[in-house]
Amino acid sequence: SSSGSPIMDPQTKFKEFPYALAPIKTLMLELVSSVETRLGSSLLPCSLPPDVQYYHNSSGSAEATLFVRSGIPTSPVDFILGSWIHCKLPSGGTLNITSLSTYLKSSTEAPNFIIEIIQSTPTSFVLVLDMPPRKDLILYTEYLKTFYEDTELDKHRQRLEKLPEVTPYSSPSLFIRALTSPTGILVRIEAGETTKTEEIIQDHVRPAANEIIKIWLDSCASVNREVGEADKDYLAKRDLITRTKTLEIDLGTSLPRLFGQQVADRVLGVLKGFF
Amino acid sequence: SSSGSPIMDPQTKFKEFPYALAPIKTLMLELVSSVETRLGSSLLPCSLPPDVQYYHNSSGSAEATLFVRSGIPTSPVDFILGSWIHCKLPSGGTLNITSLSTYLKSSTEAPNFIIEIIQSTPTSFVLVLDMPPRKDLILYTEYLKTFYEDTELDKHRQRLEKLPEVTPYSSPSLFIRALTSPTGILVRIEAGETTKTEEIIQDHVRPAANEIIKIWLDSCASVNREVGEADKDYLAKRDLITRTKTLEIDLGTSLPRLFGQQVADRVLGVLKGFF
Repeated sequence: SSSGSPIMDPQTKFKEFPYALAPIKTLMLELVSSVETRLGSSLLPCSLPPDVQYYHNSSGSAEATLFVRSGIPTSPVDFILGSWIHCKLPSGGTLNITSLSTYLKSSTEAPNFIIEIIQSTPTSFVLVLDMPPRKDLILYTEYLKTFYEDTELDKHRQRLEKLPEVTPYSSPSLFIRALTSPTGILVRIEAGETTKTEEIIQDHVRPAANEIIKIWLDSCASVNREVGEADKDYLAKRDLITRTKTLEIDLGTSLPRLFGQQVADRVLGVLKGFF
Repeated sequence: SSSGSPIMDPQTKFKEFPYALAPIKTLMLELVSSVETRLGSSLLPCSLPPDVQYYHNSSGSAEATLFVRSGIPTSPVDFILGSWIHCKLPSGGTLNITSLSTYLKSSTEAPNFIIEIIQSTPTSFVLVLDMPPRKDLILYTEYLKTFYEDTELDKHRQRLEKLPEVTPYSSPSLFIRALTSPTGILVRIEAGETTKTEEIIQDHVRPAANEIIKIWLDSCASVNREVGEADKDYLAKRDLITRTKTLEIDLGTSLPRLFGQQVADRVLGVLKGFF
């Protein structure tokens, strides 16, 4: 799948983050590296078709990468998914979305991990950083205690929300809000100038994200908690709804709009195979 | 249960709201009146013991009322619960908590209703205004659509959050956060002066609360949706956890602290009979 020209190699394109602010690139590379170092031998190489690993619209105003590595059969990890989208907007602005998410199998009940940075101006962005629960936290209070209280996840949210540049952000989708954990970080960061934006990412977002991926790797991805058949069915059913709705809300309408229907169909068709 | 002195009659004490700001008293009376007018004939009179309807600590620095009306056997309403707590703090300040909540039976699946106004200074308060879901909104997406999307509940939250005096509020309890609906209003309102505070309650909180109680009365309390046996078990189990944890978190530690162990045991003992 290599094209010969290293800069256009779809296999490495995801990790180039050519349009991200420097500290976002640094942060994303650290997170991907943490996951690959820890889970490395239990993850298969990315085997997406080259034209799904890297795709763009006909005018070239929008381009994107996808990076998916599936877990081997004995791994609790189903797959990890990295992505960036870069797109010149008709308004003259630029939209940059950078994300990394992880999905566990229904043989384990632990939460997933997600980070998403949506930047529509050089000085403001929306940050989603969470371990979305895979069980109802009301019915399973022990789950809430194990993964959210005992891990002290909330302190990262509290620290970030103390910054004057940070305000809580509400997803327009009620489903996405319902999916968010009670310690989930969903914030808008408006810094006024690029230097300050970079400083906030470097000094505040980066340590929080690195600590949360460490919690996820330590207490979720590495622990093969045996779940019973009933629980497995419950998790499989809830995961399927979560994945289908997330894909639909996140990409179902935006990909056709940004990349045209043909490209969107190709990419979504491949993604559905994982979700 | 009447003591002869109208001002001390426990039966009417709840509706006096002697310590609430005028527009909070107006709002609470409107809400209670909406509920009693609509559900009136299907609600039994409040039959709490007089010393639970009105109670205070030994020094008299803390006093409170409780008002509970249970639904008749054919009603989908289990009970409605009104309360206010007034208490002089050692710091010199005063704490006023005013609330009204409603609880449906497990024979119906619709959400409950809650309003709670926690005022610790004359110019700032925390407002909780929500229809807490009784089913997991991820697993039951139709429930999310029926009660939260189709009812356009979110617009009330959006309007309130546009006010400069309003900031989102996070409950310190992760369980209470998990219990909150995606359209739940949890905000801190800091107005700087009492007149402005009263204006915000009068012009913004009051219309939102009145519209939400109307939605609850129209689409939750009046509709006897037949649920199957499995669903009834699910609702009963989830309701029991919700009620037990809510009581524990809300009152389990604060009542002994504010009123002493003996009064707290008496009040909590009676409340547990409903929860």
